[in-house]
Amino acid sequence: MPENESLSPRTKGSNPLRIALFGFGTVGSSAARILLESQPEGLKLTHVANRGVARKKADWVPSDVVWTEEFDAVLDSPDVDVVVELAGGLEPAGTWVRKALATGKSVVTANKKLIAYHGIELEKLAAAHGGHLLYGAAVAGGIPVIPGIEHGLAGDRFDRVEGILNGTCNFILSKMEQGAEYAPVLAEAQARGYAEANPSEDVDGFDARAKLSILMRLALKAEVNPEAIETRPITQVAAIDFGYAKDLNCTIRQIARAERVDGHLAATVGPMLVPLQSPLAWSKGTENMVMTTGHYGGEVVFSGHGAGGHPTAVAVVSDLVNLAHGSKRIEVASAPATITTELEVPHYIRFLVNDRPGIVARIATLLATEKINLNAILQKPNFPLDRLPFVITVEPCRTSALRRALAEIGKMECLLELPLDMQILEK
Amino acid sequence: MPENESLSPRTKGSNPLRIALFGFGTVGSSAARILLESQPEGLKLTHVANRGVARKKADWVPSDVVWTEEFDAVLDSPDVDVVVELAGGLEPAGTWVRKALATGKSVVTANKKLIAYHGIELEKLAAAHGGHLLYGAAVAGGIPVIPGIEHGLAGDRFDRVEGILNGTCNFILSKMEQGAEYAPVLAEAQARGYAEANPSEDVDGFDARAKLSILMRLALKAEVNPEAIETRPITQVAAIDFGYAKDLNCTIRQIARAERVDGHLAATVGPMLVPLQSPLAWSKGTENMVMTTGHYGGEVVFSGHGAGGHPTAVAVVSDLVNLAHGSKRIEVASAPATITTELEVPHYIRFLVNDRPGIVARIATLLATEKINLNAILQKPNFPLDRLPFVITVEPCRTSALRRALAEIGKMECLLELPLDMQILEK
Repeated sequence: MPENESLSPRTKGSNPLRIALFGFGTVGSSAARILLESQPEGLKLTHVANRGVARKKADWVPSDVVWTEEFDAVLDSPDVDVVVELAGGLEPAGTWVRKALATGKSVVTANKKLIAYHGIELEKLAAAHGGHLLYGAAVAGGIPVIPGIEHGLAGDRFDRVEGILNGTCNFILSKMEQGAEYAPVLAEAQARGYAEANPSEDVDGFDARAKLSILMRLALKAEVNPEAIETRPITQVAAIDFGYAKDLNCTIRQIARAERVDGHLAATVGPMLVPLQSPLAWSKGTENMVMTTGHYGGEVVFSGHGAGGHPTAVAVVSDLVNLAHGSKRIEVASAPATITTELEVPHYIRFLVNDRPGIVARIATLLATEKINLNAILQKPNFPLDRLPFVITVEPCRTSALRRALAEIGKMECLLELPLDMQILEK
Repeated sequence: MPENESLSPRTKGSNPLRIALFGFGTVGSSAARILLESQPEGLKLTHVANRGVARKKADWVPSDVVWTEEFDAVLDSPDVDVVVELAGGLEPAGTWVRKALATGKSVVTANKKLIAYHGIELEKLAAAHGGHLLYGAAVAGGIPVIPGIEHGLAGDRFDRVEGILNGTCNFILSKMEQGAEYAPVLAEAQARGYAEANPSEDVDGFDARAKLSILMRLALKAEVNPEAIETRPITQVAAIDFGYAKDLNCTIRQIARAERVDGHLAATVGPMLVPLQSPLAWSKGTENMVMTTGHYGGEVVFSGHGAGGHPTAVAVVSDLVNLAHGSKRIEVASAPATITTELEVPHYIRFLVNDRPGIVARIATLLATEKINLNAILQKPNFPLDRLPFVITVEPCRTSALRRALAEIGKMECLLELPLDMQILEK
């Protein structure tokens, strides 16, 4: 077709990129489906590598596609141009990706952990051998956040990047918003396949932390160790917290947030109170959302499906299309950065106590000792006195001061559990 | 700096792109500020061309930048690599852009009208002479919709693209939502500089129509004449319509919408009822929003500042950064397409009548003649009987049938104005 040729001069006459999928699970099979159904110009699926490949072999894949368990043979093969790594985790994925890049192949991956921990090293390896490394699927799946930042907002510089980066937590919290408690909603998320049997990666914030560290490098140009980002679990959030949050015109979401404040770089992941009028409160179910704040362009919101086979596969195939069309990433210089844990923000602190006189007075005294001002005290009626949840909100205070105060408050005998402390986002 | 060099191999050692700004108004001066403050690698502002340039000359621009009124001399100059066209309108902008592209220069433009009417021709011209044409700022200003679709969603195919593409209309309608009438809000928009003295381009939908036609080509691969897109003005929307919309759990926004339905391509611009739970209802003030619906990836929402000097300039400078880094657009084949005006959707019809017995019966009869089913009749109390607004909503019906019915209804003597007919979006 002459029109096609004239519209894509960079692939004209050249051979298509030969693609090996490493991993034929949910995302891998979706990527194969899109490649076979849409037949994007300049791309050809040639290999599928998976353990126990006999079980995986799909009858809708053309017979000229090679199915194999021999990952190393594919990596060594001169008949493969791009390895699509969808196995996840640091190993053996890391070894495969390094080997592919070292032989001049390009790599497309959805592996947030590998990129969060070794992205810089791998990008250098790719550049040194003439290949490319693309990982648009590693953050927020089918939402084009990485290309949006790299290509579309390349002319801005960012003060802040924040968002809802873990669909499992968003499913749990947006469901709890309707009145349910944590445990049954987690069980439902597990039954639906949204949460693992061991949900720690999601609910403790480690998954979101890895994604945030990638966004920090791309948007804030800050290279950080993901483990330096403070995380708080969502496990202690209870239905009652949504009731109190609503009284404060807020809801609760797991937020991943990084910003430059007064020359310092702050980054945290955990449940936070989000004003109902903030775009972050719009996100329901397993959706993801990213909000960037540009020095010149202000806030930009990206939202959509952050996980799932088809949306994640769209990001993978989009990276492949970029490779086929010779559209390169815009790589910008980043620099190692240290994260401060010292913020000055308002907090919501929920106590669960065996009630007796003088509790609020004692807590208020301990907060005052650290020069922390109370903003509101909220106590809903009709709870048993021996298991009474109440909330104190405090005006913006330094993290270290609040931590010291909470350490003292934590010694009070009336407490049935350590206080739940959540940052309140300001809109 | 060796790090910088290794991270941007494509500009290493090469000379920076020399940039001529054509137009030094709000966007042009913002673009100059960003270029001078951020000093993006590989870009150098060398010329500013504007009529009456003596008035425009800014003391914060370095003295080696050439200020001139001689557009043609700049176009002929071998010392310019990229022309940034910010004059707007079809002419003389079109002549400048053609001349720049014909001499092998690249062009970055925010000119939606020029791209909507002549984009295909200009892209061919760019390709033929080895230059590039980028227009990320032409739709939704600082929101990276075009790069998001081209790069980040290149692996999907789209069933629908819709959004709020005109900040002026969004300012007016989201302000009217709070109870104000059209005329004073338009006056406020004009006083704030959001609306022109003659607001027709915005309120009649012509601006949004041009932007929609660009999105249709990029997302739906459909080449259409913008004038083939049916537009309806927002001028007849009144405060009372927001009251009735609220009763239907909706608000009203100027929506630009194109989709493929049953093999047909539909496209319309105008005020529509938007469910309050739709992302399209979130957009307030002058913000823009675009929602794409991908066959594989589902809905993706982009939102932010669609206009204004700095946000639009971010899109312009981002295009320039893409050029400097050799990151090319992904151009996909599109084909001429015909737009159907025949949809099957529910409607909101608001009447303003001098009340008398039998009006509803007559209207219902005329709708029934066209086999159109009523869904609800809404009439708020306390309006004067000689100027009574009431609403009929109808179930999904064919546009042609409703048009015939409304033509008959329009002959009724009791009507004080022609009925206001708005599509109700389904969520």
